[in-house]
Amino acid sequence: MASTTEALNAERILEATEEVLRRHGPAKATVVDVARALGVSHGSVYRHFRTKVALREAVTKRWLDRTTQTLEQIAGTRDETPPVALRHWLGALFTAKRRKAGDDPELFATYTVLLGEASSVVQEHIDELVGQLNQIVFRGVQEGDFTAVDGDSAATARAIFDATNRFHDPCYAHEWEQPGIEAEFSTVVSLVLRGLRR
Amino acid sequence: MASTTEALNAERILEATEEVLRRHGPAKATVVDVARALGVSHGSVYRHFRTKVALREAVTKRWLDRTTQTLEQIAGTRDETPPVALRHWLGALFTAKRRKAGDDPELFATYTVLLGEASSVVQEHIDELVGQLNQIVFRGVQEGDFTAVDGDSAATARAIFDATNRFHDPCYAHEWEQPGIEAEFSTVVSLVLRGLRR
Repeated sequence: MASTTEALNAERILEATEEVLRRHGPAKATVVDVARALGVSHGSVYRHFRTKVALREAVTKRWLDRTTQTLEQIAGTRDETPPVALRHWLGALFTAKRRKAGDDPELFATYTVLLGEASSVVQEHIDELVGQLNQIVFRGVQEGDFTAVDGDSAATARAIFDATNRFHDPCYAHEWEQPGIEAEFSTVVSLVLRGLRR
Repeated sequence: MASTTEALNAERILEATEEVLRRHGPAKATVVDVARALGVSHGSVYRHFRTKVALREAVTKRWLDRTTQTLEQIAGTRDETPPVALRHWLGALFTAKRRKAGDDPELFATYTVLLGEASSVVQEHIDELVGQLNQIVFRGVQEGDFTAVDGDSAATARAIFDATNRFHDPCYAHEWEQPGIEAEFSTVVSLVLRGLRR
């Protein structure tokens, strides 16, 4: 239990919330559990997160953001050509999701429940990832590697995200360790890359 | 209640099972309910389906087969060029799934639960659909419209199925009436078709 003399900031509350969710599961975890884990009153938690829903959304966003940050660098770099960067980015997203699902299945299951509750947080996460894809597609069009479908790079980025969802959407997590999944991923990515070719 | 003088065949049992599932839901429906709806003993039902699991798998297969049959004609015809047939087939699959989800949401929810139980039935269904896609891809390669990814038309067919799963997998049913979904479908199909181009 943390000392109350330590500053109670949002990050500490979110860490404790994740731990409480992992221990009690999303159905049973309460704000009181979080406050108890931190050794503070539940009023102190509510000063940072005004409702239980706000707290759950914030912890879900934090979990999703951990993936986004790694990918942001791949989308933003000019060290790779757009086709290489796109394959790299899609592979990194698949790897990150698989690792989350495989390394801590309970926490993954917990977040899968939370994702169902926090539709605006999920939508923002998807918009952010599609925005990163759009960066790569847009650069590919500028540099002459790609042609966007119907000349619309944002719609094309969304189509790439949709076309690869077997390899990043938690609803397929149970397939991510199946034999042959790597080859299937690679074929989908090749098909997509061929579809983008100028 | 049906007359017991009518021949009790597998199809009648499956019809009654579907009705019982619709009424009681997958968690509560029993073989006794099915027998009662038919006015026969549960022993008579077990003569056709040896276990409750076998009965549930058979009714799931029957439901899935209703989609497959329509699509089979599109995959088998030579009236359309392979690119046209492919867009037609993917559109027909999306339409069929949307209709199933939209027209009878309770039955759709029921079958979504059953799909989780009947993994071999689902696998056969997917294999059959991918087989139909492979027919179109293979003909496209022969006729000079398509090039398969890595020269493998079966793997390419699977990649097309995977790349379009937002528009046929029940896990996305809640998105199928969203505004813009038609345009998003069309962009994914265009990307795929471009990826197949010779």
